[in-house]
Amino acid sequence: MWKIGQRGVPYFQRLIAAPFTTLRSLPTSLVETGQNRVIDASLTLIRERAKLKGELVRLIGGAKATTALLGVPLGHNSSFLEGPALAPPHVREAIWCGSTNSTTEEGKELKDPRVLSDVGDIPVQEIREMGVDDDRLMKVVSESVKLVMEEEPLRPLVIGGDHSISYPVVRAVSEKLGGPVDILHLDAHPDIYDRFEGNYYSHASSFARIMEGGYARRLLQVGIRSINKEGREQGKRFGVEQYEMRTFSKDRQMLENLVCINF
Amino acid sequence: MWKIGQRGVPYFQRLIAAPFTTLRSLPTSLVETGQNRVIDASLTLIRERAKLKGELVRLIGGAKATTALLGVPLGHNSSFLEGPALAPPHVREAIWCGSTNSTTEEGKELKDPRVLSDVGDIPVQEIREMGVDDDRLMKVVSESVKLVMEEEPLRPLVIGGDHSISYPVVRAVSEKLGGPVDILHLDAHPDIYDRFEGNYYSHASSFARIMEGGYARRLLQVGIRSINKEGREQGKRFGVEQYEMRTFSKDRQMLENLVCINF
Amino acid sequence: MWKIGQRGVPYFQRLIAAPFTTLRSLPTSLVETGQNRVIDASLTLIRERAKLKGELVRLIGGAKATTALLGVPLGHNSSFLEGPALAPPHVREAIWCGSTNSTTEEGKELKDPRVLSDVGDIPVQEIREMGVDDDRLMKVVSESVKLVMEEEPLRPLVIGGDHSISYPVVRAVSEKLGGPVDILHLDAHPDIYDRFEGNYYSHASSFARIMEGGYARRLLQVGIRSINKEGREQGKRFGVEQYEMRTFSKDRQMLENLVCINF
Amino acid sequence: MWKIGQRGVPYFQRLIAAPFTTLRSLPTSLVETGQNRVIDASLTLIRERAKLKGELVRLIGGAKATTALLGVPLGHNSSFLEGPALAPPHVREAIWCGSTNSTTEEGKELKDPRVLSDVGDIPVQEIREMGVDDDRLMKVVSESVKLVMEEEPLRPLVIGGDHSISYPVVRAVSEKLGGPVDILHLDAHPDIYDRFEGNYYSHASSFARIMEGGYARRLLQVGIRSINKEGREQGKRFGVEQYEMRTFSKDRQMLENLVCINF
Amino acid sequence: MWKIGQRGVPYFQRLIAAPFTTLRSLPTSLVETGQNRVIDASLTLIRERAKLKGELVRLIGGAKATTALLGVPLGHNSSFLEGPALAPPHVREAIWCGSTNSTTEEGKELKDPRVLSDVGDIPVQEIREMGVDDDRLMKVVSESVKLVMEEEPLRPLVIGGDHSISYPVVRAVSEKLGGPVDILHLDAHPDIYDRFEGNYYSHASSFARIMEGGYARRLLQVGIRSINKEGREQGKRFGVEQYEMRTFSKDRQMLENLVCINF
Amino acid sequence: MWKIGQRGVPYFQRLIAAPFTTLRSLPTSLVETGQNRVIDASLTLIRERAKLKGELVRLIGGAKATTALLGVPLGHNSSFLEGPALAPPHVREAIWCGSTNSTTEEGKELKDPRVLSDVGDIPVQEIREMGVDDDRLMKVVSESVKLVMEEEPLRPLVIGGDHSISYPVVRAVSEKLGGPVDILHLDAHPDIYDRFEGNYYSHASSFARIMEGGYARRLLQVGIRSINKEGREQGKRFGVEQYEMRTFSKDRQMLENLVCINF
Repeated sequence: MWKIGQRGVPYFQRLIAAPFTTLRSLPTSLVETGQNRVIDASLTLIRERAKLKGELVRLIGGAKATTALLGVPLGHNSSFLEGPALAPPHVREAIWCGSTNSTTEEGKELKDPRVLSDVGDIPVQEIREMGVDDDRLMKVVSESVKLVMEEEPLRPLVIGGDHSISYPVVRAVSEKLGGPVDILHLDAHPDIYDRFEGNYYSHASSFARIMEGGYARRLLQVGIRSINKEGREQGKRFGVEQYEMRTFSKDRQMLENLVCINF
Repeated sequence: MWKIGQRGVPYFQRLIAAPFTTLRSLPTSLVETGQNRVIDASLTLIRERAKLKGELVRLIGGAKATTALLGVPLGHNSSFLEGPALAPPHVREAIWCGSTNSTTEEGKELKDPRVLSDVGDIPVQEIREMGVDDDRLMKVVSESVKLVMEEEPLRPLVIGGDHSISYPVVRAVSEKLGGPVDILHLDAHPDIYDRFEGNYYSHASSFARIMEGGYARRLLQVGIRSINKEGREQGKRFGVEQYEMRTFSKDRQMLENLVCINF
Repeated sequence: MWKIGQRGVPYFQRLIAAPFTTLRSLPTSLVETGQNRVIDASLTLIRERAKLKGELVRLIGGAKATTALLGVPLGHNSSFLEGPALAPPHVREAIWCGSTNSTTEEGKELKDPRVLSDVGDIPVQEIREMGVDDDRLMKVVSESVKLVMEEEPLRPLVIGGDHSISYPVVRAVSEKLGGPVDILHLDAHPDIYDRFEGNYYSHASSFARIMEGGYARRLLQVGIRSINKEGREQGKRFGVEQYEMRTFSKDRQMLENLVCINF
Repeated sequence: MWKIGQRGVPYFQRLIAAPFTTLRSLPTSLVETGQNRVIDASLTLIRERAKLKGELVRLIGGAKATTALLGVPLGHNSSFLEGPALAPPHVREAIWCGSTNSTTEEGKELKDPRVLSDVGDIPVQEIREMGVDDDRLMKVVSESVKLVMEEEPLRPLVIGGDHSISYPVVRAVSEKLGGPVDILHLDAHPDIYDRFEGNYYSHASSFARIMEGGYARRLLQVGIRSINKEGREQGKRFGVEQYEMRTFSKDRQMLENLVCINF
Repeated sequence: MWKIGQRGVPYFQRLIAAPFTTLRSLPTSLVETGQNRVIDASLTLIRERAKLKGELVRLIGGAKATTALLGVPLGHNSSFLEGPALAPPHVREAIWCGSTNSTTEEGKELKDPRVLSDVGDIPVQEIREMGVDDDRLMKVVSESVKLVMEEEPLRPLVIGGDHSISYPVVRAVSEKLGGPVDILHLDAHPDIYDRFEGNYYSHASSFARIMEGGYARRLLQVGIRSINKEGREQGKRFGVEQYEMRTFSKDRQMLENLVCINF
Repeated sequence: MWKIGQRGVPYFQRLIAAPFTTLRSLPTSLVETGQNRVIDASLTLIRERAKLKGELVRLIGGAKATTALLGVPLGHNSSFLEGPALAPPHVREAIWCGSTNSTTEEGKELKDPRVLSDVGDIPVQEIREMGVDDDRLMKVVSESVKLVMEEEPLRPLVIGGDHSISYPVVRAVSEKLGGPVDILHLDAHPDIYDRFEGNYYSHASSFARIMEGGYARRLLQVGIRSINKEGREQGKRFGVEQYEMRTFSKDRQMLENLVCINF
């Protein structure tokens, strides 16, 4: 997927941006009011889908926690390809592909809705197309995750999306659970630039946002292969525990015996 | 894209269908009520998106008719591949691809929102995932088209979706305009089986549905290359004007001089 | 490769099946007689090919056992793709591809016909095209394997084919050797459904057929990653030793020290 | 498909050729006898398949001429890629692909065995693998075509195969019909080299073989785009009528009004 | 090929640009002197290759004009993909591909060096890697074309390269022939922006550069499908004759009877 | 990439070879003189590029050793595909691809010219196109490597090229350093045939050339998976230490503790 938007304005914001001189004189309140109505309708739709799935799982009964797929088709905060904007339906297709069967190695039956439910995608691209900026878009992602968490026993499994969505997702979990969480982050990169290429919401900056917001109690980054001076400084600044692959053998024992406390 | 659903129930309806014995005893009213809430929320979302786009085009002013993209990511009524369920975002990507520019051969500027606007996709797969059947789903497609038509000067350009959606789309146009319409149908197949492989909503039956519903005054099918006995009989039954490629040279003059009356 | 046959009759059986009303009144004996002549000719051809290869290897002399490739281009018993119907010539092409050389890691020279010979493919698709059903087709596979085994020192290495052919191949080996054999089956699935999607010869049922027929003394299934209740029950019923990957570390020592007795 | 054989002997003849010093001392008669048995068995198999198909078409009745597919998976006489050795099953798959339907533009129903039957492939690669050379192999192709023609009302439609098979196929037709035939050859090349890269049976020499054998009364080559001095001289020598694309407008009228006489 | 350079400096200029603060203090004269030596050596190499090819063609004798391939592997002035930077060797590979033969439709033998010779590529990427900017690079392209033209009877056929190279190539031809030339430009775009996305040497601005430089007497642009206001204004400003596809039928007669005068 | 040259003369040598009878009578001295001028100009160009890069690295200062990329686009000594003739620019593209960043696992910054510099490609194909044979071409490769080594602190990292270039590269290093070197050769094949398919410079013979020339003090070949009788005999003849994968566990300890002496 090409960076279509690079010629100028992102194509999803064309409506507002393109005939700029004309639209600049439009009453802002009108545009904003309309955008808010679209956002509200989007959240209502996600709430209703989560609610129906929650009701059904509860009616069947017996589930303590149900994985609930929530797709976030967002790719514009990637500094390279933007394919993640198209990813969620392809991921679902792979899950249900006829070449595999639905019993997991641990014996779980994925076709049982108490094991795996699906509340669909956030209409990310439609919201962007309406001219909504990333400040508000990221809040929509957070709100959507919370809406799913409100329906017991659903537990959201978010299908990205580029790595920028880690920020609104972790934020939602933290706010919903009532405090900072512990994160085990498996990645070759720390994604902790203050800003990457000037983008506050860059996929390479999501953990800077998470740490700044106080949404993490401990952040363990394991598997780092490519980190530069800024990555190390930001790690130190936020008290991140960074484990690089080149010293993995030394850390392995400790990492394999991590215990999840109080969660 | 594989026919995932062929193993049994379509995967979008798993929730309801999979643990059938359990769910059969669920109170139908509860399921249906939840589904209706999801459908209502979906239509509200489309209405709000169309409304905002319509408001903006009207504010800029000067547009008599604006193409409004409406995506219908639906593929399960295809008897072969179901890729159209994933098509609309790929079509948009091609439209805005950086390898082309945005001025058409006739000099129109596609970046002008008065020329081309976008109201996004109908959440078809999410609605199916909630267990909504095709009777109600097709109505959602019709209603969505009408919602776009309500926002002057938007004119919906529907991005499929397999050919089954011709039925709800034509139906919406006819109902909105107040009577049957004339259709120039360019295709190698007549898509007029009564049912194809038992499917009332098959992509090969959409024009049977259109004719039965009385949504077309004249139906001209041009370019037919593969038609069998049933196709011819159905054509005769509904008074369809079928022009096959093997006799195209004979019909060419007349077809090139078709005049659009009263529209 | 698409499941071409899903529209109705498998395309290889079209001749018999398509104009069903007409052909049903055809004298069965005539059709069956013709089919039997085709089957006999097919087996004769395989016998002659194996015989010539056997004669040559014996003439050169010095070989205790010679791998003899036998292709089985059969894919219709797969519940997903049917590509194995086209596989054997592609496998041969890979074996002799110019990017590799013909000396194995153990120093064997694959170009020496005493190491590797080839008796070609069973004409599976042609036999199916004649309207022969799977009962007789599977017997043709068994007979072909036996014909190769009759030519000392040839040892058939069967190139599939979907997994349904394990049944006729194991059956042939057992019948030829004069009793049930021990099988080390490396697979992520047990392929032991009584029937899969109603298919007695399904690629997912081949080991049920093998066990029912009494062709295995011991069946060790190693590497199982996806097994459901029926798989476990069938395993118990037939006395199969199933080793799953999730407990592999426990079983590893024993499995690495399996000894081949009396063979 | 790579030219696997270029390292030395074609891989299908390895058995005979590889350990040359050893095999050279083998009694030729033994090898030849075995090869002849394989060839006889191959022809018997084709005869039986054609016979059964012919019987069924005659039993249903009413067919004046039935297209009978005969595959010739042969590619080694190509001077470039050898993929045609794998082509016939892929061609059949395309014919029956679910993306198309089985009614032709002229209204023929391909599923009717009186319209289209299939007698399968000649086991070309197996015969080559036995060490049979092209002299005898080409005769097998000719004999196979004749065997199909003997079963009224079957008319062979040969699926190649590189262009070298035009020679044995035309030869068979001519011999069966009792005299030289008229050929309308549509191609960008004349394929009339005496030998191409030393190969008497080259795909670029097939029409030289046809003309030398006296199997054509008239040969019209239409569409020639690439012809050199040898091509023109050979054309003149054999009295071929060569129509090049660069002068097509001049010849078009005549070519469009060719009449088929006495056939 | 991705727009690698978009992260910051084009990678071919990294050496100079990357540690900017350090290099800025380097004595400019030293860098420039070294770059000039590289440019001189590049031109010497092209001169020697053209000279040898010219000598040989003249020695064989009898050629009035010989096509001489000159590759320009340059892609960074494209606003989309930059693949043309890798194109010339792929073009040559296609010319000599074994799937075609070397006689053209008009009977020319491409293997005759008097018909087609090759002087290789300009080392564009190496020159850029040394930090040479486009002002000087474009002069290298012009000089190279002239060097080939100096070797009678060679006529350069330039293999691009994105469309930005039209400018230095036309310039070279004009300067070498001693005056402005007539150009028949077949393209869907006029490539006549003053600057495209700020790039003076953009592939979309090459004909603006040609017209400004006075290198064209007449410029006929035929086949235009996508032109905007700036394209039309620039055309008018420079007296370009623009023929759009939408009115092609009107202009066809005249365009097919263009006569080449005085050339 | 196809073996284009197999039809006769390699296409890069067409000029000399094609009209053989004519050119044979050309004064050899003329051709050779021209070729020598082209070779000299090629080496001058490489010298100038290396010199400029060396000057800059020395000016910035502080580097003890700088990796200097040198591309050798040569593929005709491969016995299979010849794609390596096109490889170097693709390798560079991968190095700078936007999907990765430029900090290595060990913390090196690849964008720093003191870490990684680039002196471009040897114009291998242009030299071959001039009719220069492999004897002289291989010397050009050796000379080019030496030219890079002359610019302290540049250390050439040669980007191939098929494996035949190991010979001229090792030769250059040995000659430059003043004596035979120790080589740790990681490969599945020993590449030590006396000649492979008659080619003295074959990619499968490069280590035979290295050993014959006395350019290696010790040659350790580690990872051998496919070796035949000739490979073993050549190994013995030259005193090569060959470590095969099938006995790797035995040799592992020793190989992991190899110490680099006196280098």
